[in-house]
Amino acid sequence: MKYVIIGSGSIGMLLSSYLAQQTNSLLLATHRNIQANQIEQKGLHLVHTDKITKVQHVRTSSCSALLKNNLTDIETIDVMIIAVKSHQVKQVLEDLKGIEHKVASILFLQNGMGHTEMFHDISIPEVAVGVVEHGAMRTNDWTVYHTGVGRLRWSYVQAGKKVIETAFSPLRLNEFPILQEKNWIPLLHSKLIVNACVNPLTALLMVKNGQLLENKYYLNMMSQVFDEACTVLETSEKDQMWEYVRDVCQKTSSNSSSMLLDFEKKRKTEIDSILGYLLRQAANKKIHAPIIAYLHDAIKGKEVEFREGEVES
Amino acid sequence: MKYVIIGSGSIGMLLSSYLAQQTNSLLLATHRNIQANQIEQKGLHLVHTDKITKVQHVRTSSCSALLKNNLTDIETIDVMIIAVKSHQVKQVLEDLKGIEHKVASILFLQNGMGHTEMFHDISIPEVAVGVVEHGAMRTNDWTVYHTGVGRLRWSYVQAGKKVIETAFSPLRLNEFPILQEKNWIPLLHSKLIVNACVNPLTALLMVKNGQLLENKYYLNMMSQVFDEACTVLETSEKDQMWEYVRDVCQKTSSNSSSMLLDFEKKRKTEIDSILGYLLRQAANKKIHAPIIAYLHDAIKGKEVEFREGEVES
Repeated sequence: MKYVIIGSGSIGMLLSSYLAQQTNSLLLATHRNIQANQIEQKGLHLVHTDKITKVQHVRTSSCSALLKNNLTDIETIDVMIIAVKSHQVKQVLEDLKGIEHKVASILFLQNGMGHTEMFHDISIPEVAVGVVEHGAMRTNDWTVYHTGVGRLRWSYVQAGKKVIETAFSPLRLNEFPILQEKNWIPLLHSKLIVNACVNPLTALLMVKNGQLLENKYYLNMMSQVFDEACTVLETSEKDQMWEYVRDVCQKTSSNSSSMLLDFEKKRKTEIDSILGYLLRQAANKKIHAPIIAYLHDAIKGKEVEFREGEVES
Repeated sequence: MKYVIIGSGSIGMLLSSYLAQQTNSLLLATHRNIQANQIEQKGLHLVHTDKITKVQHVRTSSCSALLKNNLTDIETIDVMIIAVKSHQVKQVLEDLKGIEHKVASILFLQNGMGHTEMFHDISIPEVAVGVVEHGAMRTNDWTVYHTGVGRLRWSYVQAGKKVIETAFSPLRLNEFPILQEKNWIPLLHSKLIVNACVNPLTALLMVKNGQLLENKYYLNMMSQVFDEACTVLETSEKDQMWEYVRDVCQKTSSNSSSMLLDFEKKRKTEIDSILGYLLRQAANKKIHAPIIAYLHDAIKGKEVEFREGEVES
C-alpha cells in the first residue's frame, strides 16, 4: 500500500510515525522544504510515555514539489490522507487537480465541516472522513509527542473499491487504534458540536478546556452554543450529545484547544469550518443562531487584528 | 460650602483638585489610611497639559474614620459627592446610616445605573446624579493626570433646597466645566448605553475603544448590544444615540475603557451596574436580551476567575 500524508503538523506527524511502522511506502508532504530535509536526515521522532521511537523510513517531500512536479516518480497513491488545517484544504484540492487520476482514495482529517462542502468537486473515486481523538504536540520539525491516546475514527463518504478499508484492516497499532464507522455525518456532527462548543469560547476567554465546566458562567455560555448547534444540525439525541461534550471537556480539561493555540500564536483559526459552517447551514435552513453568529464575529474580528499586526510588524 | 468627596480614585482626586481651588472646606475620604496621609503631607498633585498644580488645602480622612467615628467634628456637610465604584455604593450607603441627618445633599457619579436602584432607601433631602466626561488617570496616591477635558453633567433626582445648584453655580472652573441638566433619566441612560456598548466588549476582546469602530466584526457586535440596550431602555431617538456612541468611541479611540483596566488588574468590574442593570430592567419588562445576557456571563465568568486567582496566590 502506498500512503501519502499531506500536512506535517502534529496530527500529520503522529499519523506518519505510526503508519510508517507498518508500511514501507509512506511519503509525508510538508509545507516547508526545511522540515522535509530535517525528517529525512534525522528520522521522525515519536515520543510516547517517555519512550522515543525513531521512525527512519518516512520519505518526505515538500507539498508543492509533490503536488506540482514530483509526482511523476509515484505511479499511483493508494491512500492519500489530508492532515492540513481546514482552511488549507481548498488550496490542496486545487493543487491536486491534474493528478487526481493517480489517487485511489482520499481521507480527510480536518476539524469542523467546511471541507465537506468541497467534496462535490473531487473526482477521486473513494472519499472518506476521519476524526482524530488523540492528543499530539509537535515540539520541533522532526519530533512529535503523543500526549493522549485516543482513536482515529473514520467513515466512507463514497466507498469506491474500499481501498482504505483494505489498507487499514490489517494494521495492528495498539497505541493508535483505528476504527471504522458506518455513517460519516453523525461522526463529523459530534466532532463539530464539540469543536463549536469548546474552541471559540476557550480562545475568546483564554481558558483551558476544563474551565468551561468548572465556571458556571462559562458552562452557561457553552450550553447556549450547544443548543443552537443542535438545532442547526437537527441533532436527535441531545442529552447523549451534551454528555459527550462534557466528557470531552473533562478528559481534556488541562488542554489548550487548537483555537486557543491559534490565538496565542496570532494565526488564522478554523472558525470558517466550525461556526462558519454552522452559520451557512443555519442560513440554508432559515434557522436563527444569534449566539453562534456573535461568537463567530468575535473570532473573525480577532483574526483581522492578527492580520493587521502582521502588516505593522 | 462644606464638601465631602467619598472615594479617591482618579475621578475623586480630579474633582477634589478642582473644587479645592474654589473652596476652603473640602474633605476627601480615601479607602486607605496611607493615601490620606500622603495627600495631607504632599498635597494633591494635578497634572494637566504638562503643568503640575499642587493643591494644598485638601483635608483628608479615611472613609471608615469619616463615616463611622469621625464625623462628630463636622457639624454638617452641604454637598457629599460619592465617587466610588458602583459596586461600592451599597457599602457606603450602609455606612452613612446614622449620619445622614448631617448631610444636606448627595451627588452620585457612578457608571451604569445600579446605584439608582438604592435611592429609595436614602433619607438625605437632596439627591442628584452626575456623569463625568473627563479623562483622568491616577499615577500614585497623590497624583492625578487630567488626560481629557470634558464636562461634569449633573441633574437632580430630588431637588430639596437646591444646595448643589447653589454650591456649583458660582464656580468658575475653565478646565472643569459643570453643567446642570433638567432630566436625570436621559442623562444616565445615554451614559449607560455608551458603557454597555463599549466597556464589556473592550474588556473581553482586550482592545482600545477605537477598535470597536475600526474592526467591522467588533462594530457589528457593538451594534447588537446597542439595539438590545435601546429596546430595554425604550430609547426614542435611536439614530442620534448611535451617533453619540460612535462619537464617544472616536473621541476616546486610544483609551482603555475602565472595564478593560479592571480586567488587566484582575479586579471586580462595574458589570452589575451596567449590563446587570439592563438585564434586571429587561426581566421586569419581560424583554428578551440574549446578547447582553451572553456578554454579562462572559464578564461575570472572568470575575470568578480573578477571585479564584486571588485565593490561589
